[in-house]
Amino acid sequence: MAKPVIILVNPQMGENIGAAARIMANFDLEELRIVSPRDGWPNERAEAMATGAVGIIEQAKIYDDLPSAVADLTLVYATTARTREMIKRVASPRGAAEEIAGAAGPVGILFGPERSGLSNDDVALADTIITIPVGWYKSLNIAQAVAIVAYESFVAAHDASPPQPEEPMATKGDIDALFGALERELEARGFFYPEEKRPGMVRNLRNLIERQALYEQDVRTLHGVIKALTRSNDGMN
Amino acid sequence: MAKPVIILVNPQMGENIGAAARIMANFDLEELRIVSPRDGWPNERAEAMATGAVGIIEQAKIYDDLPSAVADLTLVYATTARTREMIKRVASPRGAAEEIAGAAGPVGILFGPERSGLSNDDVALADTIITIPVGWYKSLNIAQAVAIVAYESFVAAHDASPPQPEEPMATKGDIDALFGALERELEARGFFYPEEKRPGMVRNLRNLIERQALYEQDVRTLHGVIKALTRSNDGMN
Repeated sequence: MAKPVIILVNPQMGENIGAAARIMANFDLEELRIVSPRDGWPNERAEAMATGAVGIIEQAKIYDDLPSAVADLTLVYATTARTREMIKRVASPRGAAEEIAGAAGPVGILFGPERSGLSNDDVALADTIITIPVGWYKSLNIAQAVAIVAYESFVAAHDASPPQPEEPMATKGDIDALFGALERELEARGFFYPEEKRPGMVRNLRNLIERQALYEQDVRTLHGVIKALTRSNDGMN
Repeated sequence: MAKPVIILVNPQMGENIGAAARIMANFDLEELRIVSPRDGWPNERAEAMATGAVGIIEQAKIYDDLPSAVADLTLVYATTARTREMIKRVASPRGAAEEIAGAAGPVGILFGPERSGLSNDDVALADTIITIPVGWYKSLNIAQAVAIVAYESFVAAHDASPPQPEEPMATKGDIDALFGALERELEARGFFYPEEKRPGMVRNLRNLIERQALYEQDVRTLHGVIKALTRSNDGMN
């Protein structure tokens, strides 16, 4: 499984470098490369912001220029929001992540400096542009851009369906029995009145119960509730 | 189209509130609710960090407790990484976003305080848990969690396929003509030698050209390249 290298080109604020490293660790990315960071290297603010992911900062590789930073890669993506004069295929973060998960050689993803983004010369070194879809406010923080791309990469590399509770879901039979118990008790108390409205009232009530996602334990609880509610008051005082 | 309300429960750092507002604006979310922020309200650091999205901070609604903050909503999701004792359905960010995009009434998404996350009592108020899938480093910054959820919400609400360059792609006919021109010039120069290797050499070269994503302009450029390369050197000096 190919894990993309994250390449920050001329990043300005150490805080953003640290935040990018942290989100990389959240999504199991390992290799950070930095081209000519504005405030030099090492950077204390980057280390502080990385928190538990400081190892990624410590092992980051620093380069003087972008061509050296991508020299050993076989596929390079450039993240940019702006429409460019140059002709280059544009991928969504999701599409790119799926391509990267299946890539044969080492892949890098470029992120530009905070103020200006990647230059045209930077983008020219990439095979494909990644554009993160945004709404009315288009200025995306660099660490947030890394977050979206890293997240999509992680989802593409894993079965993303989350673990469910171990408690088994109630069967339709369980729910039918629950409804039957409720209906009987309501019937005994003259709930379904007048008689001509009865079918509609039963249907509505059944609908209400059937459309819930109920676990076995919920059904046991609800049987207990019905039992408790229908108990004679006398014994409780 | 339902846009989820973002609800920060007892957030600690103003910077994170501001970063959350900024990413909300990036993904066209509008309404921020804050339950009992640690450092009071208004918060200058939140305003500074929100940059162009400061309007979301200014219009944020402040609540004393979570039940009041969700009282008018019909569907509530709680973001949490931890396995809980309670029985509740767990959705992925993507699955939840698709549900929310089709929801009939107002929807809220809860995010807990930085240090501890949502309490069990908070989670109990939600219909469904959202768990963001993470790797070895599980501590996700709150603004990054908002980013993932807001991004998925935006993608679910839009056609996420990015705009492509307006330049038309080359047709297979264009590419065949290009290959023909190249092959003729190579042939004239004895490139395909020895004769028994010729079929393999032609096939490899054709493969190389056919598998590229070429635009019409690229094909024009490459015709120019072939023409230039095959020009007699004499005229150029």
